[in-house]
Amino acid sequence: MTERIYNFNPGPAALPLVVLEEIRENLLNFKGSGMSITEISHRSKEFENLINDAAVRTKRLLNLGDDFQVLFIQGGASMQFCMIPMNFLSPDKSADYVDTGTWSTKAVKEAEIQGKSISVVASSADRNYCYIPKNIPFNETADFVHLTSNNTIKGTQWADFPDTNGVPIICDMSSDIMSRPLDVAKFGLIYAGAQKNVGPAGVCLVIIRNDMLDRVPDTLPTMLKYTTYAAKNSLYNTPPCFAVYTVQLVLKWLEGTVGGLEKMAVLNQKKAQLLYQLLDSSSFYRATADSDSRSLMNVTFRLPNEELEQQFIAEALENDIGGLKGHRSVGGCRASIYNAVSLDAVEVLTDFMTTFERKKG
Amino acid sequence: MTERIYNFNPGPAALPLVVLEEIRENLLNFKGSGMSITEISHRSKEFENLINDAAVRTKRLLNLGDDFQVLFIQGGASMQFCMIPMNFLSPDKSADYVDTGTWSTKAVKEAEIQGKSISVVASSADRNYCYIPKNIPFNETADFVHLTSNNTIKGTQWADFPDTNGVPIICDMSSDIMSRPLDVAKFGLIYAGAQKNVGPAGVCLVIIRNDMLDRVPDTLPTMLKYTTYAAKNSLYNTPPCFAVYTVQLVLKWLEGTVGGLEKMAVLNQKKAQLLYQLLDSSSFYRATADSDSRSLMNVTFRLPNEELEQQFIAEALENDIGGLKGHRSVGGCRASIYNAVSLDAVEVLTDFMTTFERKKG
Repeated sequence: MTERIYNFNPGPAALPLVVLEEIRENLLNFKGSGMSITEISHRSKEFENLINDAAVRTKRLLNLGDDFQVLFIQGGASMQFCMIPMNFLSPDKSADYVDTGTWSTKAVKEAEIQGKSISVVASSADRNYCYIPKNIPFNETADFVHLTSNNTIKGTQWADFPDTNGVPIICDMSSDIMSRPLDVAKFGLIYAGAQKNVGPAGVCLVIIRNDMLDRVPDTLPTMLKYTTYAAKNSLYNTPPCFAVYTVQLVLKWLEGTVGGLEKMAVLNQKKAQLLYQLLDSSSFYRATADSDSRSLMNVTFRLPNEELEQQFIAEALENDIGGLKGHRSVGGCRASIYNAVSLDAVEVLTDFMTTFERKKG
Repeated sequence: MTERIYNFNPGPAALPLVVLEEIRENLLNFKGSGMSITEISHRSKEFENLINDAAVRTKRLLNLGDDFQVLFIQGGASMQFCMIPMNFLSPDKSADYVDTGTWSTKAVKEAEIQGKSISVVASSADRNYCYIPKNIPFNETADFVHLTSNNTIKGTQWADFPDTNGVPIICDMSSDIMSRPLDVAKFGLIYAGAQKNVGPAGVCLVIIRNDMLDRVPDTLPTMLKYTTYAAKNSLYNTPPCFAVYTVQLVLKWLEGTVGGLEKMAVLNQKKAQLLYQLLDSSSFYRATADSDSRSLMNVTFRLPNEELEQQFIAEALENDIGGLKGHRSVGGCRASIYNAVSLDAVEVLTDFMTTFERKKG
């Protein structure tokens, strides 16, 4: 069976079909080496070219200058939650965290568990994280400001990034990296678990401004220091080769087939608009995030009751539309429409939603 | 081009062809889900079944009782070097390390960098790590004993594991796990980067005895505590799904096609014997490890001079025999003959070696 569904999974998530087809085609023989990508040496010329190409494409897509480096690290965003305070928070200083729910909250916890001094300078906990805080009183003396650009569970996203008085922003962009152009001037470090917008699970894309490396204490374990990855081109030890390979193919698709982040952003806007327009014009469906804080990646919504939500999710799957269940911590429904989810797929979904409302509304 | 070479890479290394074929066949549609293994949720029933099956097969193959758990952790063996002292070495105690080169040496360094108290109770540094130490004075009060079962670079391997007076052995088995049956009674923790004997790069297989979990301090960052992985079935955060999937397929091959570790060991013995017999009966080739310490996984050898070694490696590759270059830190030649390298492949190699010697010797 080769039939595929419309995949609205929150992550791991849909990959471009052409990427999967290229992997399949070359799985027994990577670039004429006579070996699979899973079997070649990470010290080979072939793999070195591949990882360098992934870094170059990342820099080109995000318009990064020579003051930034691209790293590939294992452990997902969760490992970054612990590495960030370990590497960048000096004992006599503090960092500002903005709590927009779930992942931000976990990032805060991993700093606190290390006995680091941090301030939660803003939070949207008062309304179950359905909005992005405004007018935040950032501390000018903070070592860094930590943000989560998009919350996959609550369906919120920073439309613009705040002014932090020159304090570098460290940002978890796991669920919206490469979904739109980015002005990197404010950022000291950007990290993204690949499994939503740029690849499979198993690798975290890290973009670091060179001056941040100067802060890293020598006394950290080797695998927990950003300097290790920067000095060794992410090849200190064996990297997750297959995951890096897939990321490289996704970036190639983004540059070549899509045509870059401006075009990707237009398409992502269009996809999200289709869904939000439907939600806003309906009294059957209800969007859960405040309209000025809505995510273009994860559209979260409710139906009149939980029974209808279960029917909706089940009937969608019968129509080859998968991944619509909301996160177990909040319930409801969610359509994740990352880069690789096509406009066609979103149209299939909105058609289904309209039909379902007509039948049950 | 679908032609494949005879792959003697030290890691990432050869995988069973049937495993690669199964991955390829299902790459666009995993188990009728209509999604790739790289696109399905790690919280789905399909993935849960898969990771559970990988753990069950590991336990069955190694004959592990209920006192052991199987974990899947990112970061390779190098991350384990740092997690082990962090989790198991109490401030007032010490651990014994045996230094058999390279990886052992790195494990020692990662304990020391944390200011932990350890004793290197034996080392084969005096003769460039070409042997496994004997009659080691282990400390009865040590928190654990750390060993590296096989050194890929020096071509040495522990044939049997030493008596440590009941102190649990923590062992890096990255390069010989599942290559032979194992009496697990002596071990508190076994870890193995998958990319040599059980899968692709990107996941480390960890086998932990339950009582070791009691030692883990609550104050560690979440991703660096073994208790996190044990409590959440390695699904605290998104695991490296593709790597776990491939490991599961390799374990299925080991149980089903090979018929278990007794049979695997017989085959591995045979493969290694073919090579060592050739080396020992030749005055052209020379094995580098002491005969009582030789690895059945990595056969390291020299030719009369470096020029001949370069010719040997190049000519082998022209004959579709790859991966024979020794590690850059030691030079020379090395044939890595992990589980997935067939007896046929080793015979092709020994035939080539005989011909090469006849021509150049």
